[in-house]
Amino acid sequence: MHRVRIPVAEGVLDANETIARANREDFDRAGVAVLNLMSAPGSGKTALLERAIEAGLGETRIGVLEGDVQGSLDADRIAGLHVPVTQLNTDPGFGGECHLDANMVRSALPEVALGEIDLLVVENVGNLVCPAEFRIGEDARAMVCSVAEGEDKPLKYPLMFRSCELVVVNKVDLLPHLDFDLEKLRANVAAVNPEAELLTTSARSGEGIEAWSEWLAALPARRGAPA
Amino acid sequence: MHRVRIPVAEGVLDANETIARANREDFDRAGVAVLNLMSAPGSGKTALLERAIEAGLGETRIGVLEGDVQGSLDADRIAGLHVPVTQLNTDPGFGGECHLDANMVRSALPEVALGEIDLLVVENVGNLVCPAEFRIGEDARAMVCSVAEGEDKPLKYPLMFRSCELVVVNKVDLLPHLDFDLEKLRANVAAVNPEAELLTTSARSGEGIEAWSEWLAALPARRGAPA
Repeated sequence: MHRVRIPVAEGVLDANETIARANREDFDRAGVAVLNLMSAPGSGKTALLERAIEAGLGETRIGVLEGDVQGSLDADRIAGLHVPVTQLNTDPGFGGECHLDANMVRSALPEVALGEIDLLVVENVGNLVCPAEFRIGEDARAMVCSVAEGEDKPLKYPLMFRSCELVVVNKVDLLPHLDFDLEKLRANVAAVNPEAELLTTSARSGEGIEAWSEWLAALPARRGAPA
Repeated sequence: MHRVRIPVAEGVLDANETIARANREDFDRAGVAVLNLMSAPGSGKTALLERAIEAGLGETRIGVLEGDVQGSLDADRIAGLHVPVTQLNTDPGFGGECHLDANMVRSALPEVALGEIDLLVVENVGNLVCPAEFRIGEDARAMVCSVAEGEDKPLKYPLMFRSCELVVVNKVDLLPHLDFDLEKLRANVAAVNPEAELLTTSARSGEGIEAWSEWLAALPARRGAPA
């Protein structure tokens, strides 16, 4: 087998970091904890947010910033639960941006009612590569992976798994119908990120939703602690 | 709900188009048909290629160019089937590129034995956004979507579905265990790409693998026809 490696430009990331710090200062001033929630397309981020909101988040007042290439399908679902939601679309270009960056989030902040919430969940564009490269001023990062995607994803997309403190393994109701080894996934996550916390959930059966809701609800209290 | 839209730069795409044409000339000279195979992470591209190679492709001699951020897990699987395979990694940058572009493919061409194959399948990086924006000199584009990803993906990632002539709906063995409406997916695909052909497959049960293999094997004969 032959191998070829391709160099990548990094210049844009410095500017992103500067804007991410400005976002962070705004969030700090408002006393809002921010979660950057990432995954591949169709892993179940929105369904998990719906279940957590339905389960209740204690005293924590949540708001959602929905990042999508196009449309407002997910924002419409969240708005149906009477939670403040802002839609951020990345599509006016040729095919749309594949991730949110700090400046996109910054452009949406005037529309986000920071004074009325304690926790802002930013649902990133479904993609396991670029979202991990652009900080947006978040306090914490979590990702969702579905058991239907296979156990090898931490090895193929290591930066994403490495950059998150929580990995939510979703759709575990499908395990009896898949050739999927949960212990192998745990080992692959640990190989790239030994510090990562791991939750198993099913938005369909409700398994693990209580632990997921509690994790979300606890984020504002942890704000300010090193991410 | 509030909405914000973000403009996107397009300059890089002109250069890509020029290099894609150069690739295409090389493929034409060698008489090789090229398929750009795309999907979200974990939709089953590699498993579908394995099943097609095992099923046999008639007289068609296949080669594979594996695009991954990091590692060679998929290339190792294909190499195990005694098919010529080249690994193209995009990871030397900060987090790796999220797609293949024409220049990356061009850099790999000296390692691809074009004289010994009739069909080159380029397995792109798992991502439903950027791979659709960069032509690589291909004759045809196909994408795989797994039924575990939900029916809404054509509406959320329309450029990807619009840019492909074949949509392979994979993992249909999971249908009895999902709240998934195949007819709704068909309607959503038709809404963004009425011309798209649609195949339903399961790499696990073997359903639809014969039709998929035949579609692949027929590509070289269609080469030169408008894509």
